[in-house]
Order: sequence, then structure tokens, then C-alpha cells
Amino acid sequence: MERYDVAIIGTGPAGLSAAITATIRNKKVLLLGSKDLSQKLAKAHEIQNYLGFPAVKGADLAAAFQRHIDQMGIEITEKRINAVYSMGDYFSLQAGDEMIEATAVILATGVVQGKPLPGEEELLGRGVSYCATCDAPLYRGKEVAVIGYSPREEEEAAFLSEVCSRVLYFPTYKEETHLPEGVSVIREKVTGIEKADEKRLVKTDEKGYAVDGVFVLREAVAPGQLVPGLAVDGSHVAVDRKMAASIPGCFACGDIAGTPYQYIKAAGEGNVAALSAVAYIDQLKRR
Amino acid sequence: MERYDVAIIGTGPAGLSAAITATIRNKKVLLLGSKDLSQKLAKAHEIQNYLGFPAVKGADLAAAFQRHIDQMGIEITEKRINAVYSMGDYFSLQAGDEMIEATAVILATGVVQGKPLPGEEELLGRGVSYCATCDAPLYRGKEVAVIGYSPREEEEAAFLSEVCSRVLYFPTYKEETHLPEGVSVIREKVTGIEKADEKRLVKTDEKGYAVDGVFVLREAVAPGQLVPGLAVDGSHVAVDRKMAASIPGCFACGDIAGTPYQYIKAAGEGNVAALSAVAYIDQLKRR
Repeated sequence: MERYDVAIIGTGPAGLSAAITATIRNKKVLLLGSKDLSQKLAKAHEIQNYLGFPAVKGADLAAAFQRHIDQMGIEITEKRINAVYSMGDYFSLQAGDEMIEATAVILATGVVQGKPLPGEEELLGRGVSYCATCDAPLYRGKEVAVIGYSPREEEEAAFLSEVCSRVLYFPTYKEETHLPEGVSVIREKVTGIEKADEKRLVKTDEKGYAVDGVFVLREAVAPGQLVPGLAVDGSHVAVDRKMAASIPGCFACGDIAGTPYQYIKAAGEGNVAALSAVAYIDQLKRR
Repeated sequence: MERYDVAIIGTGPAGLSAAITATIRNKKVLLLGSKDLSQKLAKAHEIQNYLGFPAVKGADLAAAFQRHIDQMGIEITEKRINAVYSMGDYFSLQAGDEMIEATAVILATGVVQGKPLPGEEELLGRGVSYCATCDAPLYRGKEVAVIGYSPREEEEAAFLSEVCSRVLYFPTYKEETHLPEGVSVIREKVTGIEKADEKRLVKTDEKGYAVDGVFVLREAVAPGQLVPGLAVDGSHVAVDRKMAASIPGCFACGDIAGTPYQYIKAAGEGNVAALSAVAYIDQLKRR
């Protein structure tokens, strides 16, 4: 299997900045995330403090970032990473049923907005899943619920509807949904997940829905869930001034590495994380 | 005396970024440094990894920074700060014979390139000075040497020639000098400063020059000399992830806060330092 020097997860300012610097340093880079870059950035009305771009619209800044990576020939691979495992001198990244190898990993996924649902963490792996691709086979011919935090999750729900007997889709956003007929869209506020005998109960502010499995699909997952064993500080990865996380070879930058949540701070940290990852890779090769 | 909320020392990417964010947060900002911004930036041939500006010339990036501060009405005050004293709940900044007060201070002066000269630190305050404006009166009618690390120091040497009987100027740079007749330019490599009875001896690779006082004028001074009592880490200010230095209310960002020496890292840290300074100021006011 081909092994990348560094896998960068996330295509906001932190991930893009890291990818640019690692590429300049001649590393074999895999940049994973959305080709739409950061939704938060694209939707920002006006950004005043990204030095060099006075009073810029989010969409215009995103376009400048896109030109930068295009000009350097950096491509984005649209794969969702469900877990990152440290294997000693490399990392194994789980992307659905595919495994990807990289010597170093840079986490730039942004931060999970809001708290987990009541019951979500307790039932994770026991009827609650974060990955449709990974766990769909467990629910073949059964009934599932999908709690989708962005329109991107509709693809996952559509895929589940091909496998499962029934799919209930609970969007947490206001945009119109575009889903196949087999998916029932329920616009109620989800308040928690409970165990009810062999079933799981999705509770809303109106009632409860009994299903066999619940998929909670967010743009970012909590860092401790993404990288088992990683030291966290609340919803952030614990990092030092070199953006090194607690597992050697793992770095973090941008919102996931802590406040303030600012674009220029994220871009700066991406640069530092990339240079630290480069130093780590070079030192491993010298052994 | 009018007191600023925050004094920012340095007009490279870190200082400019800090000034922008502190201004957005409605703080009374004093931005101190050169109106030419960073010489290092302006002279950079091409910068590849300032996200949003692919393959940009240093001069063009500096021009974009200038437009940004102009658009926000941020002005640069060209005063050289010789020392910053913590006075408890505010700071006193010595600018020649003027004192400036600020509640918080952000150090963004860049890093001192190279080591001090042999003898320089030992004789500081005893025949060696970093400040022509401060110490010229001590050498009225006497002979002094000026070791100038950039053409900007020529103004200081010219000023000294109005006060002192003789000024020897040792440029460490190659550019042609523009100095009044009273100043003797000596193009020899300075190797150290020594005490010789009541005189000070500027030693070069060719010979020694006995004078009454020696002015060593660099663009940046070591942080521990700029802010007495500040915890340092080699030639850098010791800071935490919030860019807070060891003295409450004092923050640092950019090259002075540590490696890597990168523009986007400096800009990101300036943003963080400003937000930390804002939080510090607001918390003092709430007391």
C-alpha cells in the first residue's frame, strides 16, 4: 500500500495552510476533506481581520484560498475519515471500508459545535454510529434513524435507504432536503437517544421513534473519538506550541486545537503544524 | 497623561495583525514601529505559503498589509521603544526621553539576528548604550562610536554628531551611507567591545578604536533587555498558547515568540495576542 508522508484532515484555512507548506517542503501530502472547503468560511458575511484582505467576503477569501492550492497543484480527496489509529511509526486512517497509511497526521477538522446528544456517547458502538459506510451492513433490512447536521449527510441517508428497510431522517438544519422516497424526513428537534429493550429510541420534543440503529452524522467528530487515545482538552486536541498532540506524529491546528476561532490564527497554526510534521518525518527517516 | 489600552511594538505581520484585531475590538491602540513595515518582508523575493496570496513578492504582500491598515484608519507611530516597565496595572514605555502609558503591551519586534558582540552585554550601561536619544547627553563634547545594523541608524549617528565631539560609524551592512561630514565611516568588521581604563575600545578585525561611549543600534533588542524581568527562552519571549508572557498584561507574537519564522504564523499569533490582550484589559476594567 502506498504510504503518504502526511495526511491532512480538513480543508478549512488550517488544513489548506498545512497542505501548502508541506507541499513546498516536498512531502507526499494527502489532503482530505470537502472540495467546497470550509462551509463556515464560505458563508461568512465579511471578515475584517485576515491580514492582507481588508473587509473581505467569506466567499472571496475562500476563492483566494482555492486559487492558491490550484496554483500549487494541490488536490482535495473527498473521503470522510472515521478513525485514525496510531501504528507506531505510521498511522492508519479508516475511510469507510478503505484504510489509508501516512507517516504523520495533521488534524484540521474544525471543532464540534454544540454538545453531544444525551445518550449519544453512552450508546456509541451499541446502536449509535458515526459512520454510515462502516456500519450500514449491521442494519441490513432493519430500521434506522439518521440525525443529519448538514445537507451533506443526505447522501449517507440515501445510501442507507438502499440497505435498510426504513430510514428516518432528522435534519438539524433549515435547508430543504433532497432525499429518495424511501427516506422519511422528520422535522422535529431531537432531544436525546435512549435504549428501549432491543431498540433505540430517538426522542424528540414531540415524541419517540423506535429504530434498530441511530446514525449521528456531523461535519466534525470529537477528537478523542476520531483518534483513540489522543489527549484532549474539552472539545479540543491538547497541543503544545509546535502544534504537536499527545501521540508522536499527530499534530492539530485551527479550531480543533483551541480558541480563538479565527481564520488567520488557523492559517498560522496550519503552517506550524506542517513544519513540525516535516521535522518529525525527516527525523524518522534519519533513524 | 493619556493612557492607551494596548501598545503594540513592531510593524511586521504580527504587529499589524494584532493592531487590526485590537482596533476591531474597539481598543485604543498605539502601534509603534517603522512606517516602512518589515524590511525583511519588503525585501523577500517570493513568499509561497501565506495562504490566499500564491507566489507573492514580499513588496506586494507588504502593500496589501498597508492597504489593510489604511482602510481601517490604523496609523503607525515612528518611535523607538528602549524599555518597557511593568507598573502593576499598566506599563510605562520609554521612547527616548518620553514616557508612554498603556494597560497592555504586545511585543512584536521580531527577533534579534545574531549574537551580541563580545563585551556588549557586560558593558551595557557602563559605556555601551542601545539608545542615542536617551544617552547622548552623557557624551556631550566627547568621542563616541556607533555600530549601526541598518541604514535607519544613520539618523541616530547624525544626531550624535551634533552633540559629541567625534562620531565613528561602523555600518554592519553594505549599503552606501548618507551621513554628515562630522561622522567618520569605518568599514571594518567589529569583533568586540572592551574596557581600556576610562575609555571603551571598539575592536575590529584590523585594529582598535578608543572612544568614551559605544552605541550599538539594532532594529530589535533582546526581549529581556527590552522588558526587564521578562521570562525568556533563548532569544525569544517565553509565551503560552494564548501568547501571554510571564508578566501579566504583556503578550508577544511573531518571530520574537519563537520559531518557525514564517509570515502567516506571525499574523496568526498577532491575532491571538490581541484577543488575549483585549480579554486582559476587559477583566481589569471589571474589577
